[in-house]
Amino acid sequence: MMHVYVLTTGGTIEKVYSEQTGEVRNRDSKIDRYLGRLRLPDTEVRVVPLMNIDSLNMTDADRAAILQTVTGLLPEKAAILITHGTDTMVETGLYLQSALPKFDIPIVLTGAMAPLGFEGSDALQNLTESLIALRLLSPGIYIVSHSQVFPIANVRKDRTLGRFVRIDQPSI
Amino acid sequence: MMHVYVLTTGGTIEKVYSEQTGEVRNRDSKIDRYLGRLRLPDTEVRVVPLMNIDSLNMTDADRAAILQTVTGLLPEKAAILITHGTDTMVETGLYLQSALPKFDIPIVLTGAMAPLGFEGSDALQNLTESLIALRLLSPGIYIVSHSQVFPIANVRKDRTLGRFVRIDQPSI
Amino acid sequence: MMHVYVLTTGGTIEKVYSEQTGEVRNRDSKIDRYLGRLRLPDTEVRVVPLMNIDSLNMTDADRAAILQTVTGLLPEKAAILITHGTDTMVETGLYLQSALPKFDIPIVLTGAMAPLGFEGSDALQNLTESLIALRLLSPGIYIVSHSQVFPIANVRKDRTLGRFVRIDQPSI
Amino acid sequence: MMHVYVLTTGGTIEKVYSEQTGEVRNRDSKIDRYLGRLRLPDTEVRVVPLMNIDSLNMTDADRAAILQTVTGLLPEKAAILITHGTDTMVETGLYLQSALPKFDIPIVLTGAMAPLGFEGSDALQNLTESLIALRLLSPGIYIVSHSQVFPIANVRKDRTLGRFVRIDQPSI
Repeated sequence: MMHVYVLTTGGTIEKVYSEQTGEVRNRDSKIDRYLGRLRLPDTEVRVVPLMNIDSLNMTDADRAAILQTVTGLLPEKAAILITHGTDTMVETGLYLQSALPKFDIPIVLTGAMAPLGFEGSDALQNLTESLIALRLLSPGIYIVSHSQVFPIANVRKDRTLGRFVRIDQPSI
Repeated sequence: MMHVYVLTTGGTIEKVYSEQTGEVRNRDSKIDRYLGRLRLPDTEVRVVPLMNIDSLNMTDADRAAILQTVTGLLPEKAAILITHGTDTMVETGLYLQSALPKFDIPIVLTGAMAPLGFEGSDALQNLTESLIALRLLSPGIYIVSHSQVFPIANVRKDRTLGRFVRIDQPSI
Repeated sequence: MMHVYVLTTGGTIEKVYSEQTGEVRNRDSKIDRYLGRLRLPDTEVRVVPLMNIDSLNMTDADRAAILQTVTGLLPEKAAILITHGTDTMVETGLYLQSALPKFDIPIVLTGAMAPLGFEGSDALQNLTESLIALRLLSPGIYIVSHSQVFPIANVRKDRTLGRFVRIDQPSI
Repeated sequence: MMHVYVLTTGGTIEKVYSEQTGEVRNRDSKIDRYLGRLRLPDTEVRVVPLMNIDSLNMTDADRAAILQTVTGLLPEKAAILITHGTDTMVETGLYLQSALPKFDIPIVLTGAMAPLGFEGSDALQNLTESLIALRLLSPGIYIVSHSQVFPIANVRKDRTLGRFVRIDQPSI
């Protein structure tokens, strides 16, 4: 049995449509409900909702909270999946890489360009990919999205293309 | 074979999620694509895209354009379905009722609280209901939504409930 | 508030895929779950599971059981929707029409060519149409399917077309 | 850009519901259509339909045809995904392992317990997982399903559980 912690922080992947305002925003975590649609007989997933914000609004204090949670979970030797807005996902990943003590688990960050449950969304695809990638990846921090796996030092978001692309050097 | 004109004007029912901006807005008509999911062997539907706007932004000129199109179609004796934002749907319906010459077809206005293709959306339900209601209704102007049929003189939108409710007298 | 009894008898509309046998068959009623996806703020639906069988296997005793249930419900003045396999739906409808005492409610029979939840299924469409048709129909027995409404005396299933078609005289 | 050949052989994953017979069977390949729902900006997928049969009916000649196709593709150095019925997937995988010349690509077999497009199906999940697993796996033959990765020598189908399970020695 594989053990995975899913730390949710918000981002597009968890946004919901508000019928009152017509806006799409972060409100309630819905990762759990969609994970329930996957067959995971050999994976024990524990979802830990940390925050539910647009990653453009993520503060240093928010990132420190993520770091603290990840650090606290390291002794459990479970894999860690962090769901996160795509706009500052790389920044959070690089911060974790610089601040975490030595670790021997894979940590994957993922998100989506369109929220879970919206037609044509990439959200469930990215969750599905991330969970199986955690089985196969060596220790380290990665972004998984659109059937690609990026070491955190070699990725940036391309806003025009609407996806992550590989780079040789960290951009920030 | 029943003949139906579907005049699209925008509103929530046709809104799409923009991956660039994270907003939900009117851009391309998608009624056609969803009508294609219904089995309509005895119904000939012709979609006429008139405009694609939030109904809160609908002007007198926009309503005059709808009136002109409906008036022009009356001689064809086909039923007419108008997709429309819910916020001013009643206003447009009452305007048509006051301005149209005598007519002998049913005219249904419908819309949605959540866009076509969003999880939990009422949009396809309302389209489905409207098409069959047009078969059964007497000449007149109605709003069809959530398995209810309202003569246009007896309906208002209840924003708190997020749906239409019956009233005895027109509210505007 | 409109009151509707939904009597379920099985048929394709309720069939489920068996992962053990690879067959599609009637097992558990799933009408309830799909009705829960519709917004019905002014409709009180009570589902009464009567049987769950392929309508080709429906016996005289089964039809008598349906008749008995419908007869018992007539005093409540609620509309009645009967979900049923398409192969013998007309037969059951004609039987009810001949055997029921005088009644003043609409009774609709509906079903599907593909089960609820299968891609491209017409099942939820037909349920949606039937519920709103019950609001608008005069007393009588009807089949509602694919945006069409057929008085029970004027309908037969066309197996080649995979749908119901209008006829002038009852075929059985 | 990653290159993947998808060899389709049928199995539950590709079965379709026949409205004429009420059976679920292999007819037209539908892998292409579902792959089109995934975002694969850095993956070039070529689908090669080999056969479309229930794997319980797969003959030695069928397996020889799969072997011949795989062998012919090896020089291209592209990863290979084989969609296959679950009942004899292990048998085909072991046969390929014994008969293939030395190769340096990952080969993944996958399938499903319920067909693509049926409610609650695991089919798209398994396709999604297989494609990203092919990026991460060392050369060898594997079954990927339900967020698990099994070397072909260490897997059998558990019919009672409705999934694959790990074993220490090949069972056949």
